[in-house]
Amino acid sequence: MHLPLFCLSKPILHGYFRSSCSWRVRIAFALKGIEFDQVPVNLIKDGGHQFTDHYKQLNPMQQVPAVHIDGITLSQSLAVIQYIEETRPGPSFLPVDPKKRAQVRMISDIIASGIQPLQNLCVLQRIGDQKLQWAQHFIQRGFEALEPILEETAGTYCVGDEISMADICLVPQVYNAERFKVDVDQFPTIKRLNQTLMEVDAFKESHPSCQPDTPADLRT
Amino acid sequence: MHLPLFCLSKPILHGYFRSSCSWRVRIAFALKGIEFDQVPVNLIKDGGHQFTDHYKQLNPMQQVPAVHIDGITLSQSLAVIQYIEETRPGPSFLPVDPKKRAQVRMISDIIASGIQPLQNLCVLQRIGDQKLQWAQHFIQRGFEALEPILEETAGTYCVGDEISMADICLVPQVYNAERFKVDVDQFPTIKRLNQTLMEVDAFKESHPSCQPDTPADLRT
Repeated sequence: MHLPLFCLSKPILHGYFRSSCSWRVRIAFALKGIEFDQVPVNLIKDGGHQFTDHYKQLNPMQQVPAVHIDGITLSQSLAVIQYIEETRPGPSFLPVDPKKRAQVRMISDIIASGIQPLQNLCVLQRIGDQKLQWAQHFIQRGFEALEPILEETAGTYCVGDEISMADICLVPQVYNAERFKVDVDQFPTIKRLNQTLMEVDAFKESHPSCQPDTPADLRT
Repeated sequence: MHLPLFCLSKPILHGYFRSSCSWRVRIAFALKGIEFDQVPVNLIKDGGHQFTDHYKQLNPMQQVPAVHIDGITLSQSLAVIQYIEETRPGPSFLPVDPKKRAQVRMISDIIASGIQPLQNLCVLQRIGDQKLQWAQHFIQRGFEALEPILEETAGTYCVGDEISMADICLVPQVYNAERFKVDVDQFPTIKRLNQTLMEVDAFKESHPSCQPDTPADLRT
């Protein structure tokens, strides 16, 4: 992808429309009102473009996202989101109160370490035939843990009444749950939070259904 | 476990001697010089004490660690470590420079989201017979990504010359790699960092070989 010279200072997101970790970063940029360029990395085509030598230089884990920003390249969505948080003005992704910050990080990590890695493409490819049941098991288990925690912490959003990194993680994970046919109706707090958040512009415009690399038949 | 009254204000770590995520928290407390109490949660005995109703109240994910601190209970080790960082004096786990902070979080998350969850007990139990090969595959893959990143970021420690959260994550992951017979000699930077860090008191005193619940035959 050739970038015109005037774009060089914009962050570049190397991502995939359906990747929940890429979506997290898109939400963060949208919430802060930061313009960015997207370079699609097709995780499926030709065996996966994340495995090219070129992409491996950007992210040796050969996963999306990788973000080029301020002269460095970062992988791991929560590291990217907290870098954006610490270097950009605009609405904060973390509350001021240290206990609430810890709750935001706990909820984020339950999703980012406890659920998503277990239903990641590279894991499911290794599981093979049983991949649907595998993904359902770990999403179900994670949501059974998240629901009582969110009952305690949630206001309008996951922790209190301000959108935080926890919300940035929750919505893409609910999208994955629905893809893998986990019945989200079992989890009324998760369901309510997701519905509320999906009314927010930053979550809508960053949705997998409307990205530059979204295939025509999946666009809405 | 009965706690004498004078201990009530100390943090309580519900953990397991061999759990790498519990070890991360023990290192963080040790680096900050914070006294804490340990309540062992035996992950193996009687099918696993993490599955009791009592423990599920502490951590609905039914994993260790769970930390009771300042009147709240937190799970997810990186959330706990960053809470300690933000509320306690002493050596900092995150550099001042935002780009270096981001690199610390990226390396931490490669381990905490990209490697450890895939060789976690609950995953290996579900894998069954192939669990050794499964764990080796994901640790090998993760270390192949970490090695070139650490070549770029490391000084004496993972990022520059100050011990950070990345080091707190690295050492317990190397311990796991050795448990699962991954040849760490393939990764000279990881090996060198681990050796350097294992000379530091906070890493030594928190080692799985010398915890209150370490079985006699595993003590050194």
